[in-house]
Amino acid sequence: MLHFDCDYMEGAHPEILQRLVNTNLEQTPGYGCDPHTEQARELIRRACEAPNAEVYFLVGGTQTNATVIDGILRRHEGVLAAESGHINVHEAGAIEAAGHKVLTLPQHLGKVSAADVEHYIDAFYRDETWPHMVAPGMLYISHPTEFGTLYGRDELEALHDVCQRHAIPLYLDGARLSYALASEENTLSLADIARLCDVFYIGGTKTGTLFGEAVVTTRPELLPHFFTLVKQHGALLAKGRLLGVQFETLFTDGLYLRIARRAITTAMKLKRAMLAKGYRTYIDSPTNQQFFVLPNREIDRLSQFATFELWGPRGEEESVVRFVTSWATEERHIDELIEKL
Amino acid sequence: MLHFDCDYMEGAHPEILQRLVNTNLEQTPGYGCDPHTEQARELIRRACEAPNAEVYFLVGGTQTNATVIDGILRRHEGVLAAESGHINVHEAGAIEAAGHKVLTLPQHLGKVSAADVEHYIDAFYRDETWPHMVAPGMLYISHPTEFGTLYGRDELEALHDVCQRHAIPLYLDGARLSYALASEENTLSLADIARLCDVFYIGGTKTGTLFGEAVVTTRPELLPHFFTLVKQHGALLAKGRLLGVQFETLFTDGLYLRIARRAITTAMKLKRAMLAKGYRTYIDSPTNQQFFVLPNREIDRLSQFATFELWGPRGEEESVVRFVTSWATEERHIDELIEKL
Amino acid sequence: MLHFDCDYMEGAHPEILQRLVNTNLEQTPGYGCDPHTEQARELIRRACEAPNAEVYFLVGGTQTNATVIDGILRRHEGVLAAESGHINVHEAGAIEAAGHKVLTLPQHLGKVSAADVEHYIDAFYRDETWPHMVAPGMLYISHPTEFGTLYGRDELEALHDVCQRHAIPLYLDGARLSYALASEENTLSLADIARLCDVFYIGGTKTGTLFGEAVVTTRPELLPHFFTLVKQHGALLAKGRLLGVQFETLFTDGLYLRIARRAITTAMKLKRAMLAKGYRTYIDSPTNQQFFVLPNREIDRLSQFATFELWGPRGEEESVVRFVTSWATEERHIDELIEKL
Amino acid sequence: MLHFDCDYMEGAHPEILQRLVNTNLEQTPGYGCDPHTEQARELIRRACEAPNAEVYFLVGGTQTNATVIDGILRRHEGVLAAESGHINVHEAGAIEAAGHKVLTLPQHLGKVSAADVEHYIDAFYRDETWPHMVAPGMLYISHPTEFGTLYGRDELEALHDVCQRHAIPLYLDGARLSYALASEENTLSLADIARLCDVFYIGGTKTGTLFGEAVVTTRPELLPHFFTLVKQHGALLAKGRLLGVQFETLFTDGLYLRIARRAITTAMKLKRAMLAKGYRTYIDSPTNQQFFVLPNREIDRLSQFATFELWGPRGEEESVVRFVTSWATEERHIDELIEKL
Repeated sequence: MLHFDCDYMEGAHPEILQRLVNTNLEQTPGYGCDPHTEQARELIRRACEAPNAEVYFLVGGTQTNATVIDGILRRHEGVLAAESGHINVHEAGAIEAAGHKVLTLPQHLGKVSAADVEHYIDAFYRDETWPHMVAPGMLYISHPTEFGTLYGRDELEALHDVCQRHAIPLYLDGARLSYALASEENTLSLADIARLCDVFYIGGTKTGTLFGEAVVTTRPELLPHFFTLVKQHGALLAKGRLLGVQFETLFTDGLYLRIARRAITTAMKLKRAMLAKGYRTYIDSPTNQQFFVLPNREIDRLSQFATFELWGPRGEEESVVRFVTSWATEERHIDELIEKL
Repeated sequence: MLHFDCDYMEGAHPEILQRLVNTNLEQTPGYGCDPHTEQARELIRRACEAPNAEVYFLVGGTQTNATVIDGILRRHEGVLAAESGHINVHEAGAIEAAGHKVLTLPQHLGKVSAADVEHYIDAFYRDETWPHMVAPGMLYISHPTEFGTLYGRDELEALHDVCQRHAIPLYLDGARLSYALASEENTLSLADIARLCDVFYIGGTKTGTLFGEAVVTTRPELLPHFFTLVKQHGALLAKGRLLGVQFETLFTDGLYLRIARRAITTAMKLKRAMLAKGYRTYIDSPTNQQFFVLPNREIDRLSQFATFELWGPRGEEESVVRFVTSWATEERHIDELIEKL
Repeated sequence: MLHFDCDYMEGAHPEILQRLVNTNLEQTPGYGCDPHTEQARELIRRACEAPNAEVYFLVGGTQTNATVIDGILRRHEGVLAAESGHINVHEAGAIEAAGHKVLTLPQHLGKVSAADVEHYIDAFYRDETWPHMVAPGMLYISHPTEFGTLYGRDELEALHDVCQRHAIPLYLDGARLSYALASEENTLSLADIARLCDVFYIGGTKTGTLFGEAVVTTRPELLPHFFTLVKQHGALLAKGRLLGVQFETLFTDGLYLRIARRAITTAMKLKRAMLAKGYRTYIDSPTNQQFFVLPNREIDRLSQFATFELWGPRGEEESVVRFVTSWATEERHIDELIEKL
Repeated sequence: MLHFDCDYMEGAHPEILQRLVNTNLEQTPGYGCDPHTEQARELIRRACEAPNAEVYFLVGGTQTNATVIDGILRRHEGVLAAESGHINVHEAGAIEAAGHKVLTLPQHLGKVSAADVEHYIDAFYRDETWPHMVAPGMLYISHPTEFGTLYGRDELEALHDVCQRHAIPLYLDGARLSYALASEENTLSLADIARLCDVFYIGGTKTGTLFGEAVVTTRPELLPHFFTLVKQHGALLAKGRLLGVQFETLFTDGLYLRIARRAITTAMKLKRAMLAKGYRTYIDSPTNQQFFVLPNREIDRLSQFATFELWGPRGEEESVVRFVTSWATEERHIDELIEKL
């Protein structure tokens, strides 16, 4: 059976696991106050060309979003996000559980447009009743989006500008950031992202670590007393050095990008094969999530050999499916799948 | 100057104020444990033909919505509401501040349709990832809606049915309930509402009291330990008998309906006059909020004599305006306004 | 029957009620944006000799505490308070419901000592694990306390100093502030309190208004976007001018102090009579709450003529009782009670 | 340098790490829906002799406490705990951040007594104002306690009984449960704990796993929709099978107890040596945390060879210190330390 359900079906990339094995019996203080974590912070700062950035490590994505957003917002503020944004749909109300409203914007292939942000904020403050409403206090975007699509450099600059103009922080959820960086269509480096976003996170869970997300900010004053907030959110790992060791490895010798590339290569090969077979994409994604419209009988046939996700409800004759590749996908897996098409 | 901005510009209806004066030096225990409050509860039970209903008195609308919704929902649940619903727009995030997500449904003239509720719940549980999402735990509607429109009896029965089928409580925000009851197009009595809704509130603030909302439920098990929750929400009035005295008066000799009728008569007179002048309604409201599309020059001219609300942004040539009548609006006020048209 | 249960058993002081009657049909905008509220703010500023203070009006005490504390604290901070403080005991968890921990200090006759505050903060930051704990972010005191006792000027100055030194705001709950100001032992004027506290509130509910508390701050930057926060806490009164009218009256011609004095006179008369009868006080209170230790048979006998509170559990032979006087207590009530002793 | 700061200074026990290596490239669905997690659940059920228990895996202790307590309590309830309890002191306000008050009880060597629980609940409901206060909704205890002490079987049975009598769930924080089970003074088996507690957790982080805590309940109705709540609290691990694999190993061939025993042996050896040297214990702990009173000059001298914690402020001449052993402590470490005494 071939598996394309998601990009977190395996453990860690072997180099990362090996490093955990090698350092296993070292004795270090907890909570991220250890040399590995310090080194990981430094390596990430360099990769981001942001020597003054602060870096914090948390365990998972929902946790990271909830903690960062709770850290940035004041009680009267909410977070702007695409209606399809992960925080609005798939985080079990974690943002609201911390007291904050998600203020939704239209999604365009999963993306938020600067024009919509501008319009929202303008309309908000032109409405005389605005003090009775939740103020837009920050902007959340995901990159790649939940549909695998990417912001172009001009788009991110426009979002940066509109956020600056209205003095609201821009926060980027990079759960799958490696797959953006490795995409052929990518126009944004880590340094660009560090420059254009106030806070963002570099996802580890979906790119080779057992778990872990690295929050990076060039404006640490936005997250005052963040250590305590991380603890309060239950997001402080006792053996914090596990996060340090993993990210240290990811950001040594370009491992992060290197292992993401393979996921892109295999995803593109699959897309080309699908198109060659006469099928069409549902959304044209340049990253490791691929969405196709397939006849139901083809879906049923393929299900004998491979696992993948039905995207939304099953249609009358054809349906949308999602295939996800990852750092662990090998070329032969895709070749086998293509053979079965 | 004539005032049609909203329905809470005056103090209390004179009969109610007189009753407060008459009872002012009585000594009673606090927090609603007094004979006036007990009598008010009984009068409301009778008006609702619900002898076993529980009745609680709170001070204001946002407070009531936040407390009731917090009382009904468990932590993993959210509240379904029209995207135009007061709790979603104009309550400063009070629902989210208590940890709950507002799950939005399309609005149809401010109303929620049973079909949309059905569709939402069906789609929710057909999505295999539903345990990662906020479960629809109750339905919120307002009657009249924020646009002055009314649910018909069949519509409320359909909502009741869909809620029953999915075992989620139906909660009705009756901030302006008197103006529904007094409308010529009304098809729902208080008894119908008590029968079809699990919890609802009868608004006092907008119909003649200084303040106060009466929560009525035929299923008190939905609001366990509600006294403590009311206190926790800061919604417990020390001199609770003030609420009792006011509602006691409202529900004696049909005062509640009687004073609402005047608001309807004047609102309808205004609508007829506007239509006769050749203007059109923005939304055809049968209650005390009236929305018209007027040429900007007419708006400017009228603003010399009367106050009213611009509804949304000013248009190029014409704009939408809202006129609100109330129990305190006298026929001569409307006549004067019509004269100026 | 004579009533000494609490100081909110009646409606409003007749002058205040008359003013509500006189202004009842005035039409004003809602939410405190009216001339009466503006005038009340100005009168309070003058009474506090704090021309730049901001004044906000809320409805009740628990609500006010929860909203102010939520406004001041950041998420990683808690509020220091005496273990006997109202927020720690009798507010149904309202502070915690907004996400904040109450950090308790020992109580000395209901009061907090500057030395204990100093010790708490010192010990906190000397503990290396402090980032894992809730930081002391403000100090809450009540004046008079829950036991009727008063802070002396030197005590409040010491609290002010320790708070300044550690940069934590000092907040004073003045639910019964009038009875402090009117006490013979009082050494603190309103101007002193405005100078020494960062935020405090002047209680109306227990001194002649139907309801209402006036929050005063000389540091409005501590309560950013407070209007929205008040709304979010369900504490925004639609007909806000009712608060304005009542406080306008309270702060005209010294009504506030004048009506409090009567409560003190009667309380002191009762104390003297009790002592003369050979009974002892439980706590020597100079304000309108009086605590006595009485033989159970005397308690039972008095209960035939008067209502008052048993304070804590009934003892074997004698028990503690609380008698409360108010602006509405007349000398003849006390004389009648004394006659029965 | 020898390290006795805490019991989470290393990675995982080698057998556990090896198992993670062996299973690393298996492909499994996420979120705990995999065969390893299912098998771990079954092994824990067997170890607890509780065939119908539900078992959930979370990542860390604070997170687990916050999620379980939030799951059990309704909004008007708080959690009873010793004033020294971890949730009251060292969890950065995580319980309050979810809206719940910690109701403190006196601690007796870190333990709560059934008599104190009884007294609290009795006094609570005998106070007529109880609806204005936070109701005791559950009891939290830690075993071993924060001072390394243990509940005896009779003590836990008494707590069970008082909780049953008042219908409040009993929850046991077993962050260091293995070190209780392995102690010579232990009188409580896992089966006893499963029988006497409504919910408890078996700590992995401090006994050989990289991270992870296993929540066990024989009354799953106390934690409805717990999967969603875990997600909402940011406590759902994407690669959930990592928890499964680790606990599967811990509960195979008695590894959990086996590796805990070594910590006890070394801790007892250290205690005997200290007593032989003429030093005294601060608290007589039968588990892996040992507290001694040492002369300051001895503390300073030892600090050259070993790390350990100063417990509270440094005294004039002598101070309290804590030494912690763990599954990773070898006999030769202790021997070296003893040599230095």
